[in-house]
Amino acid sequence: MLKAVIIGSGNVAQHLLKAFQKSEQIDIIQVFARNKENIRHLIDSQKIVSNFDELIEASIYFVCVSDQAVVEVSSKIPFSNKLVLHTAGNIAIENLDPKNICGAFYPVQTFSKSRDLDFSKIPVCIEVEQESMYKAIEIIALSVTDLVYKVTSDQRKAIHIAAVFVNNFVNHLYGIGKEISDNNLFLFQILHPLIQETAAKILTLNPDEAQTGPAKRGDMQTIDSHLDFLTNENQKEIYKLLTQSIINHGKKL
Amino acid sequence: MLKAVIIGSGNVAQHLLKAFQKSEQIDIIQVFARNKENIRHLIDSQKIVSNFDELIEASIYFVCVSDQAVVEVSSKIPFSNKLVLHTAGNIAIENLDPKNICGAFYPVQTFSKSRDLDFSKIPVCIEVEQESMYKAIEIIALSVTDLVYKVTSDQRKAIHIAAVFVNNFVNHLYGIGKEISDNNLFLFQILHPLIQETAAKILTLNPDEAQTGPAKRGDMQTIDSHLDFLTNENQKEIYKLLTQSIINHGKKL
Repeated sequence: MLKAVIIGSGNVAQHLLKAFQKSEQIDIIQVFARNKENIRHLIDSQKIVSNFDELIEASIYFVCVSDQAVVEVSSKIPFSNKLVLHTAGNIAIENLDPKNICGAFYPVQTFSKSRDLDFSKIPVCIEVEQESMYKAIEIIALSVTDLVYKVTSDQRKAIHIAAVFVNNFVNHLYGIGKEISDNNLFLFQILHPLIQETAAKILTLNPDEAQTGPAKRGDMQTIDSHLDFLTNENQKEIYKLLTQSIINHGKKL
Repeated sequence: MLKAVIIGSGNVAQHLLKAFQKSEQIDIIQVFARNKENIRHLIDSQKIVSNFDELIEASIYFVCVSDQAVVEVSSKIPFSNKLVLHTAGNIAIENLDPKNICGAFYPVQTFSKSRDLDFSKIPVCIEVEQESMYKAIEIIALSVTDLVYKVTSDQRKAIHIAAVFVNNFVNHLYGIGKEISDNNLFLFQILHPLIQETAAKILTLNPDEAQTGPAKRGDMQTIDSHLDFLTNENQKEIYKLLTQSIINHGKKL
């Protein structure tokens, strides 16, 4: 087994730690956590450190910190010629301290402390500056997930942006659904089965096949009546822009 | 059992017919279909008619036609003092022909021919002009689903609009995710687990708790780098508007 250290104690660090604890390829010998309490429930407290000079030597350092901190943390690792893999979607590996062999180990998922996830179903996108290291990282990734993809920097960035659309923005639309339910005194739960089916459909139909609704049909009467009903200017603006986008997209098909 | 007729043969009509065929309250004695082929696989062809003067007398007529056709169809039913329930989200019941007792029986779901659905998990929103009829319709609805809600016209309209946000618009964002994947040569499937988890989260977390991402964090560096990367003006515009909406919403929390 390869000895590895996880730097970070947030959602990604915790899910990765749990996944590696079941891996036959990786032995997590230490976790760096500014706040040790964050992670004490998952690992022997003697293995948690909060100073960079306490970091011990390992083959791999997984940097699971906020995007803004990745580059700085990479330079604080007091070793060189190690494999340093960060888990961020949007940080170019050439920005990391070149004293180590840098790469990305990007799990394409939304992590919350309150939700347990089956890591084996999470796609992990791998990028590494030294092509010769790819195979080793792939073996490590395959020890925790069935879904491993080799990507370029641009692809990783594109995946991160697409994730913003299908996760962050989608969740915000759920939020608008909740606002409308609150303002009209119906239960948001009425929308739950629709939300689940919308997501389930996309596993078997492509988005063009799955698209329905007044914008898709060009049903201006319904669209106008919806816009008349909405009083929140922000909701109206989003309704108009997305409706127009669906109509324009339909014309291209 | 109450005798009922379904008018329409599209997705809603077909799913409703299948649900009522298992109901102990409703006996579907006839289906009106302009194109009989649409529905022949689901019911004895002798029970399918395509002329309004062939409609036989029943207690209830379910009008499952396109929004634009609901009102006209209601006037073509050659009976009066029957219960006429339409399944559209956005059609006011007072627009239907008043010779019958009008109401709405609105299933809040997205229906596709290619997907089988468990009707018992689909919320049905009921509205009826004669309050005294509500209980009977509720019993009928409860014979096909566990989820029955009494709503007003305004609530039904609001639910329909919210459904546009959480289904039509969400699916369009999935479509943009697919565009980005096509343009950057990564598999759209990489986003599948994220899409499923985003939808699953909303069952246990409210949208504010579930929100993550650069807009939620106010991470302008990532936002700017995403906008630099996107070349499609429509994607950029949607990115900007939804990012601003998430930022503004965060300020109100």
